Amino acid sequence: MLYPAPVERLIAELSKLPGIGPKSAQRLALHLVKAPEAEVESLSAALLDIKKTLRLCGRCFNLSEGELCRICADPRRDPSIVCVVEEARDVISIERTGEFKGLYHVLGGAISPIDGIGPEQLRIPELLRRLREEGVRELIVATNPTVEGEATMLYIAEEARALGVRTTRPASGLPVGGDLEYADEVTLGRALRGRCEV
Amino acid sequence: MLYPAPVERLIAELSKLPGIGPKSAQRLALHLVKAPEAEVESLSAALLDIKKTLRLCGRCFNLSEGELCRICADPRRDPSIVCVVEEARDVISIERTGEFKGLYHVLGGAISPIDGIGPEQLRIPELLRRLREEGVRELIVATNPTVEGEATMLYIAEEARALGVRTTRPASGLPVGGDLEYADEVTLGRALRGRCEV
Repeated sequence: MLYPAPVERLIAELSKLPGIGPKSAQRLALHLVKAPEAEVESLSAALLDIKKTLRLCGRCFNLSEGELCRICADPRRDPSIVCVVEEARDVISIERTGEFKGLYHVLGGAISPIDGIGPEQLRIPELLRRLREEGVRELIVATNPTVEGEATMLYIAEEARALGVRTTRPASGLPVGGDLEYADEVTLGRALRGRCEV
Repeated sequence: MLYPAPVERLIAELSKLPGIGPKSAQRLALHLVKAPEAEVESLSAALLDIKKTLRLCGRCFNLSEGELCRICADPRRDPSIVCVVEEARDVISIERTGEFKGLYHVLGGAISPIDGIGPEQLRIPELLRRLREEGVRELIVATNPTVEGEATMLYIAEEARALGVRTTRPASGLPVGGDLEYADEVTLGRALRGRCEV
């Protein structure tokens, strides 16, 4: 222990954060030691606040301050179209596009048998209940284009089909501003298969 | 504002930290949202703690929990040799070598006229008082090998010489494990000038 105990403790706490190694933790801690007291107090309070005031939306499991999240509580949103995503951060990514006016359903992850995560560990039963009860016409499954995400999509699509709900997925293809030369062959193959008239 | 207010507030607070951009701040905030309450509380408490319990050593201005820091309070340290550094983190770097058994003096920065930092803005007057009062025989000036650090070293060396105190600096040279090919010419030049018998 080279620093005074409170500094070592802060370094240890900061090192637990994702992407923060021991060197970054030390740099951050020494910054905070020198920072104005008000700044440190306000960070400390913001941390406590997320645990005190945040919960999950009772309908879609997005992050929420009240019983329903801002999107579920908005009467202008179309409840007949639901977009399924893995995490709350994906809701934000889709909201940023301004392209989607329906509701969401946050699964809390993807199916991954290796990690012991099956449909029951995710909010898939809650999704199927919504499909049965809420008059959903279309389900967009926007899980990540990874092995786990695709497996989750296929599982959900099958269940939704059995309930007579149309299921779609976002197009795969070349990222806008990307370079053909650097596209991997799976992405490029899907872009070709999904080609459209100019 | 896309996330609930408490999350946006935490993202804003985290973005103020050095090296944490908006994307990292969002990733950290969402990690903390999902993290166990105890972990977040303990980070929050560690933050408040550094402001409540830390102060600067009354003698050398190193970080300290008491009136004197651990090094100044250690009777086994030799008070006749003092190592001057810019910041408290430099104390830790030198302590890690295990090569130094004297005391320190933390300046709190380096002389930089462009930023309006002169000797009076640093703890140079306090250093000169220690040289006059504490029977210091040797002063090692270990400021950073930058323009500001070297200017600070030269200023301190001149003042110390006037008080009859021997002033030294750590050797410049090739880093251990480094590669001659990648050494810059100033470092290599200093390494050659400072060559020693094998």
